[in-house]
Amino acid sequence: MENQIRALEQKIEQLSKHIGILEDIHAIRRLQHIYGYYIDKCLYEETVELFSENCEVRFMGGIFKGKAGARRLYIERFQKNFTNGVNGAVYGFLLDHPQLQDVVDVAPDGRTAKARFRSLMQAGRHELAEGETRQWWEGGIYENEYVKEDGIWKFKVLNYRPLWHADFAKGWAHTPPNLYQMFSETYPENPLGPDELIKPTPVLWPETDVVPFHYPHPVTGEIWGK
Amino acid sequence: MENQIRALEQKIEQLSKHIGILEDIHAIRRLQHIYGYYIDKCLYEETVELFSENCEVRFMGGIFKGKAGARRLYIERFQKNFTNGVNGAVYGFLLDHPQLQDVVDVAPDGRTAKARFRSLMQAGRHELAEGETRQWWEGGIYENEYVKEDGIWKFKVLNYRPLWHADFAKGWAHTPPNLYQMFSETYPENPLGPDELIKPTPVLWPETDVVPFHYPHPVTGEIWGK
Amino acid sequence: MENQIRALEQKIEQLSKHIGILEDIHAIRRLQHIYGYYIDKCLYEETVELFSENCEVRFMGGIFKGKAGARRLYIERFQKNFTNGVNGAVYGFLLDHPQLQDVVDVAPDGRTAKARFRSLMQAGRHELAEGETRQWWEGGIYENEYVKEDGIWKFKVLNYRPLWHADFAKGWAHTPPNLYQMFSETYPENPLGPDELIKPTPVLWPETDVVPFHYPHPVTGEIWGK
Repeated sequence: MENQIRALEQKIEQLSKHIGILEDIHAIRRLQHIYGYYIDKCLYEETVELFSENCEVRFMGGIFKGKAGARRLYIERFQKNFTNGVNGAVYGFLLDHPQLQDVVDVAPDGRTAKARFRSLMQAGRHELAEGETRQWWEGGIYENEYVKEDGIWKFKVLNYRPLWHADFAKGWAHTPPNLYQMFSETYPENPLGPDELIKPTPVLWPETDVVPFHYPHPVTGEIWGK
Repeated sequence: MENQIRALEQKIEQLSKHIGILEDIHAIRRLQHIYGYYIDKCLYEETVELFSENCEVRFMGGIFKGKAGARRLYIERFQKNFTNGVNGAVYGFLLDHPQLQDVVDVAPDGRTAKARFRSLMQAGRHELAEGETRQWWEGGIYENEYVKEDGIWKFKVLNYRPLWHADFAKGWAHTPPNLYQMFSETYPENPLGPDELIKPTPVLWPETDVVPFHYPHPVTGEIWGK
Repeated sequence: MENQIRALEQKIEQLSKHIGILEDIHAIRRLQHIYGYYIDKCLYEETVELFSENCEVRFMGGIFKGKAGARRLYIERFQKNFTNGVNGAVYGFLLDHPQLQDVVDVAPDGRTAKARFRSLMQAGRHELAEGETRQWWEGGIYENEYVKEDGIWKFKVLNYRPLWHADFAKGWAHTPPNLYQMFSETYPENPLGPDELIKPTPVLWPETDVVPFHYPHPVTGEIWGK
């Protein structure tokens, strides 16, 4: 009978781990979706608090390091450029940033995780708002890393690769090459620049590449890039 | 040995609750996604059956109460306006209403839940169909409540906030302010109106605000609006 | 005490099944989402490996049978038409194919499953790329079947119904009827054709119909089409 009890204990321990992984998957999807809702509304203070102290934000060819780097990007750059220093939605500025198509994979020890998401953004400034009237679509891929600290999942690496932009009137078939410049100068030379540059420099549409998949092929097990 | 067994029973009871919450999350996502597929196809009879008797539907500044209110909105208003009284898809009418980016939170007792979703709608009437030719994009947020009755999850409060509309040709940078009127008169004075008006009246693009988050910040725990 | 232990064993067995279903749901969402990311990048070799040997692909009025049929569609047709024989993304060709709004239902025995998904596609060829400059939106529904083989979920039936196409400039209100022809000739008469034709032939926008739901109404239990 002691053996039976020991077997039950082991079985329960095993189930408990499976449940933990499922809960982690939900927590990570929830984190990423909540992030998207904050970005929609230019809630950059709330956004920065989603990151671990030792985080990285990868964006437009640059790596912003630690929470100081994240603040430089979200608060000093985006908040200044998009909402004139306001933390939150302003009149006539749209930045809807849906978070879609999760592939979340938690490490066996349940302490870190990787996930792929995508976005299909609607952005622009209304003709009645102050500033340049613009409107565009944007498609992009996230390949992120997460860390669980004191039971709470946070962003460890937020790696966003905008893949294409399309002016609302003209569309993606007519996007000028090199519409946006990747970062080429680091902080502090560029006071709002990244701490490091990504090499090789990511490409933009109409150039294409594959943002590497963090997961092996689910049937063949083949690892991407091998 | 009795102690060991009692400990196992307690552990199993605890795991069982965790599994129940995970199953509830899936059931609620499933309900909301199924709702979206019915709305796509103007299946308003099927839609109304997703609601609890004591439901509310919040839409365009009005609160429609109970299943009678839901029928007034979906059957008497939408079905008449969109499909000429038909329950189901009609020639040349598009109302694709994707359900995206769930943040589902189940109450500890497993009997009620709240969830945020978003939609990015493609709508309009084809030039070959009877009626006015139109085509537009729409972005909106759901902040809903759900109730489990006899083991089945239903809508308790469906709260849809359309945030912006964009004519297909002109885009969101050129949407006229006050393109749509919020409800200003209740039922029965307005025979297809809501039972109550939402105060303050919700705004429409190019005005912006934040549809309150039902959840606290996932890292700081700060409650929205406090 | 033996009775208590037997009761615990049964309870654990039951929980284990519930956890298994939740894990299957995640595995199937993951499969479908990974499929979408491969399709985005024209990774047709990787796509075909997601299918069971006895699969079917249903597309544009045709049924492609077995992996040989899947290869005919993805490798011989799509890869030739879209990327000039290359397995992977090419300059100036866009085929972003998001996978959204899952309704996944696993059979009680955990060996097969059905799921509904949708896509909202952004597709086209850039003006600087070789070939015809085009750009369009596409909305479509998946109603798929899956099979678990040696613990790995694969596609058994991939059933994609494109519902509407919209030229980027003109929109869905002005899509010509019969913009695309359904398959009308089978393999080998049509060397890139399907093994069988779907009857009745599916319709395209501005005609509309309902892709049958694999699930009963979640509240009334009514089976679709009965």
